[in-house]
Amino acid sequence: MSRTRVHNLFVSSDGYAAGNRVTFDAPIGDARALFSKFDGRVIHGINGIDDPVTVDRALFSMWGQGIGAEIMGRRKFGPQTGPWPDDGWAGWWGDEPPFRTPVFVLTHHRRPPIEFDNGTSFHFIDANAQDAVTMAQHAAGGLDVRLGGGPSSIRQFLQADLVDFLHLAIVPVVLGAGVRLFDDLVGLEDRFTVETIGTTSGLTHQLWNRTPRGTTGI
Amino acid sequence: MSRTRVHNLFVSSDGYAAGNRVTFDAPIGDARALFSKFDGRVIHGINGIDDPVTVDRALFSMWGQGIGAEIMGRRKFGPQTGPWPDDGWAGWWGDEPPFRTPVFVLTHHRRPPIEFDNGTSFHFIDANAQDAVTMAQHAAGGLDVRLGGGPSSIRQFLQADLVDFLHLAIVPVVLGAGVRLFDDLVGLEDRFTVETIGTTSGLTHQLWNRTPRGTTGI
Repeated sequence: MSRTRVHNLFVSSDGYAAGNRVTFDAPIGDARALFSKFDGRVIHGINGIDDPVTVDRALFSMWGQGIGAEIMGRRKFGPQTGPWPDDGWAGWWGDEPPFRTPVFVLTHHRRPPIEFDNGTSFHFIDANAQDAVTMAQHAAGGLDVRLGGGPSSIRQFLQADLVDFLHLAIVPVVLGAGVRLFDDLVGLEDRFTVETIGTTSGLTHQLWNRTPRGTTGI
Repeated sequence: MSRTRVHNLFVSSDGYAAGNRVTFDAPIGDARALFSKFDGRVIHGINGIDDPVTVDRALFSMWGQGIGAEIMGRRKFGPQTGPWPDDGWAGWWGDEPPFRTPVFVLTHHRRPPIEFDNGTSFHFIDANAQDAVTMAQHAAGGLDVRLGGGPSSIRQFLQADLVDFLHLAIVPVVLGAGVRLFDDLVGLEDRFTVETIGTTSGLTHQLWNRTPRGTTGI
């Protein structure tokens, strides 16, 4: 079974999962504190760093395991809005985007795909959540599909009940503003089994696993 | 840096990490309760199973990450003692050993290597712990080396201060007999930083990270 998975989604104590403003200079917006405990060096494995293997890093390292494709919202790919300018923009990540798989970017403004030598390719699709998952699962060839965010995009997939696994990390910071993850998701917990642990860093990790469909009234 | 790592080492409440008797019929000896919470299906990644992604499984899945070689004691490879009989024995694992890398089997009785199509090869070496690590790191080509056990073998590497990372899972069972992990290791904790979490299964996971050498008196 090809699952849809969300990894390393950081949420502040007051429910925000991204800042409000995304600019070329501030790709994660005005919410840098959300990511202060994140170690992006381990997303393909806990090896390759000299620092201790912590529970946080072990959980972050699930990101790349058995993933065959990603779906991301347009704002994760770039800060532009409207028709794409002819400026050569190919994402925030330079010559080595970390994905190493096909990536489907949700946008109403289509454009030709972009391919990188390391296996990453960006495909720009104007599709609803269900069709995007179908396309990505086809590209993933039996592996799982990661829903890459941002939070507005994740929320759409949650509302459509298209998320099989969600790894949240609750960060003890108060942002006061930004993009909320849980709007219009009242009762979300009824569809999931949630396991929670705290770690020494102050993060609280929650693993939300979709209960098998057919076993709930939803 | 190529690290030496131990993963998924289960220890009973009374300190045993293996049973006493290993036979062809009982590869893990008389200590089956030690492994009752283990899910070996995720050692190469949390994908590919339909069951929930739990914290236990996330931690088990570190096993294969960035590993380029394994070192194991002879008893992990087979129950024979003394010179190898000419019986075609090639380990417990059939045609698809899970290792997918070179594996160095510590034995005083050398024999030709055995190779499998999936990348696994067994090399039989009569070496002390330090020399075994040197050989395995060379074969690992910059990746990490897993110390695969059993517990008597792990204890030798711990005594020689050759372990960089150790993932223990304490199982709330009382065995009363078996192979003890911690004999002759008084003060082991002085060389490590230990992070501990409990999970809903009843397991206690401990991540032992060797403190950088040069910063302690050892």
